[in-house]
Amino acid sequence: MNELKITLKESEIPRQWYNLLADLKNPPLPPLGPDGSPISPDMLKAIFPMNLIEQEVSTQRWIDIPEEILEILYRWRPTPLKRAIYLEKHLKTPARIYYKDESCSPPGSHKPNTAVAQAWYNKQFGIKRLTTETGAGQWGCSLAFACSLIGLECKIYMVRISFDQKPLRKIMMRIWGGTCVASPSSETAFGRQILQEMPDTPGSLGIAISEAIEEAIHDTSGQTRYSLGSVLNHVMLHQTIIGLEAQKQLALIHEKNPDIIIGCAGGGSNFAGLAFPFLCDKINGAHITIIPAEPTACPTLTRGPFSYDFGDMAKQTPLLAMFTLGHRFVPPPIHAGGLRYHGMAPLVSHAVKEGLLEPRAYDQIKCYEAALLWAKTEGYVCAPETSHAIACVIEEAEKAREEGKRKTILFNYSGHGLMDLLGYDKFLSHQLSDYHLPETELQQSLEAIKNFPKVR
Amino acid sequence: MNELKITLKESEIPRQWYNLLADLKNPPLPPLGPDGSPISPDMLKAIFPMNLIEQEVSTQRWIDIPEEILEILYRWRPTPLKRAIYLEKHLKTPARIYYKDESCSPPGSHKPNTAVAQAWYNKQFGIKRLTTETGAGQWGCSLAFACSLIGLECKIYMVRISFDQKPLRKIMMRIWGGTCVASPSSETAFGRQILQEMPDTPGSLGIAISEAIEEAIHDTSGQTRYSLGSVLNHVMLHQTIIGLEAQKQLALIHEKNPDIIIGCAGGGSNFAGLAFPFLCDKINGAHITIIPAEPTACPTLTRGPFSYDFGDMAKQTPLLAMFTLGHRFVPPPIHAGGLRYHGMAPLVSHAVKEGLLEPRAYDQIKCYEAALLWAKTEGYVCAPETSHAIACVIEEAEKAREEGKRKTILFNYSGHGLMDLLGYDKFLSHQLSDYHLPETELQQSLEAIKNFPKVR
Repeated sequence: MNELKITLKESEIPRQWYNLLADLKNPPLPPLGPDGSPISPDMLKAIFPMNLIEQEVSTQRWIDIPEEILEILYRWRPTPLKRAIYLEKHLKTPARIYYKDESCSPPGSHKPNTAVAQAWYNKQFGIKRLTTETGAGQWGCSLAFACSLIGLECKIYMVRISFDQKPLRKIMMRIWGGTCVASPSSETAFGRQILQEMPDTPGSLGIAISEAIEEAIHDTSGQTRYSLGSVLNHVMLHQTIIGLEAQKQLALIHEKNPDIIIGCAGGGSNFAGLAFPFLCDKINGAHITIIPAEPTACPTLTRGPFSYDFGDMAKQTPLLAMFTLGHRFVPPPIHAGGLRYHGMAPLVSHAVKEGLLEPRAYDQIKCYEAALLWAKTEGYVCAPETSHAIACVIEEAEKAREEGKRKTILFNYSGHGLMDLLGYDKFLSHQLSDYHLPETELQQSLEAIKNFPKVR
Repeated sequence: MNELKITLKESEIPRQWYNLLADLKNPPLPPLGPDGSPISPDMLKAIFPMNLIEQEVSTQRWIDIPEEILEILYRWRPTPLKRAIYLEKHLKTPARIYYKDESCSPPGSHKPNTAVAQAWYNKQFGIKRLTTETGAGQWGCSLAFACSLIGLECKIYMVRISFDQKPLRKIMMRIWGGTCVASPSSETAFGRQILQEMPDTPGSLGIAISEAIEEAIHDTSGQTRYSLGSVLNHVMLHQTIIGLEAQKQLALIHEKNPDIIIGCAGGGSNFAGLAFPFLCDKINGAHITIIPAEPTACPTLTRGPFSYDFGDMAKQTPLLAMFTLGHRFVPPPIHAGGLRYHGMAPLVSHAVKEGLLEPRAYDQIKCYEAALLWAKTEGYVCAPETSHAIACVIEEAEKAREEGKRKTILFNYSGHGLMDLLGYDKFLSHQLSDYHLPETELQQSLEAIKNFPKVR
């Protein structure tokens, strides 16, 4: 029989990250400062350590992964490449479906790949403390985990409604020594201001980002920095270890290069992590269909314009050139919290604009149906975010059956769903509905960016 | 460097289970019926299918694992053998610590090893439906999972207080198509009787077992049977795949045989699964210390007498020869729900009586301290049950350091703790306490069995 789990030895782990910036035919548009001109690295140094800022702007194709980072990653990496043969059989498809199992990390997703790297570079730079925000808690857990292993303090501003309603991830952060407070909090000037204006607010990622950045900037000792779990170039870079491992694993079993690559996309990091190393092949002529799968409720790539916009609601970040629904867009409360972001990583956005990617959007209910089929065939309970990738995989596997083609499909199993079972319960109780963003609402949200620098 | 994750290919999976009964110098005492004489297999046939009853009494050393069972287990088996090098370094121990990672199964523990086998044998026997009980929900999830893959209906009686307080595992059972009801329920005569007598009862495993057995026995179609997740010989048998894989994996890396083997012990199945294949070596002269680790709050092996006793509070099972705290013993509500059982598998009990095992008991708080050290070194969050094994591992690794001996320690990482974070939260908030069973209370509990057939 063919093996279903393709593992690499630790000694076979990729020792460099892949930087897509080196291979793009047209360079992406630069981030802009408040005056509308490109920002300099210096303007970010109160927020990020200089070694990560250098990575953010680097155009070097291969960047060495420090040995000490690898030694932390070995706890769960290389992750297995698995074949979803039980789903294949159920679908009666001639396609072969492979997936990278990123759910096997201690926090349960791909997020620690960059959390560990960011914590390590901050520590190297002499930083003692990281601040961040978290929505559902997946990123907050990963950064707390990384800081615990590397020896940094970690402070997490968690959106209040999640803080109150999702105690589990809060407990995980605590186990790894992270300090988690509900945002808005009384610990920052911005938080206090919001609490005064809107004492009953459920909070938002925008507010939480503002508080985390404020705390980092205002630490007069200079030993605190801010950390972001997606969107930025250096985050995408750290995640490429996923795709690089997958390439080695496919080669090990003499499998042809994938015809189709799929990942769910919120800020873009798990998608980019798997796809970018293969995107390099595509730029050089390989025939690959590469699909970021997003929710119809937050259709950044499929319905948003490509424009300059802020990364956060409080307008603290530089202006980024990206697909966006407008920084004031508040996605409806679908269960895939990790996909509820108004923008998309500039690198992913650029690749879409260049015609290298073929984004698709999926309804929440279709995604839960896919997740349930996954649980009843492959056996595992996937994250609500990951279910978007699986919905797309099923669609493509059925198409391959209809076409009678033996395609190779590869996707990123970005996380498990064990901390997100409530959504499954609501789905099984028929309490979920789909949400299609009305065009008028989208246009209203885009009003906020109509005077921003235009891009084509 | 040495690899930290030792994997086997699916083609290298053990193809037979190991039956300890074949190698015991003195045979264990037989189960007794209501009249005090040994029961015949026929007396169990309303509860279990005959093919599993045959396994229960078999003395054949090796029993073939049907290919169709292996094809289900391949979803997660062979499980990795991992080296806990980060914990070793932290403890500065010369010992090498290895563990079998049974947490990587879809339900998150070792339980599906027997759930899949039991569901398959029932299906072969023409059974359409399984009933069972569950406390915290780990076993109920595993049986629902197995029934989903094999195509059986699954009905789970869940202790009411867990049903109300632990919604997560209930949702998992639902995802895999299991029907979970709170026990006592109005669906059985015994449940209705209890509800009338004690309408506010939180329920107990004893009540839930009674309801599940009643439903199986009273199905006049003959197509329903009952399934038990621990204690019985055939359950231990199915779990031996853990130890058999570990033996192959240690041989692969040319590691010497373990000096010390550790597993937590509630009903005995994860402990036996790892230990029994090595126990065979010990019977044949190998020097191995084999330690079942149990809670001081439920000290079956370390303080209970070896006696005949019922497996359940409602006295529906045969009398089993085992270490027991008395079938009326209600363990305090410690967080390691899977270790809250008054008895111990007869095979494990027999091995203790023969001097082959060296049981130890650990306090709850010491176990959470061990779990926290594990999370901060190895990175993963372990089940509260598994923390008892880890507490013992740390003790032995520190002893090896003091003795300056390069010992090899192997333990069973029986499950992850992602569904049991509340206990961690209470521990971190200093809300937990230890419970040492007062001798008077133990003696009072043992009153219930004082007239049962004596054993030496």
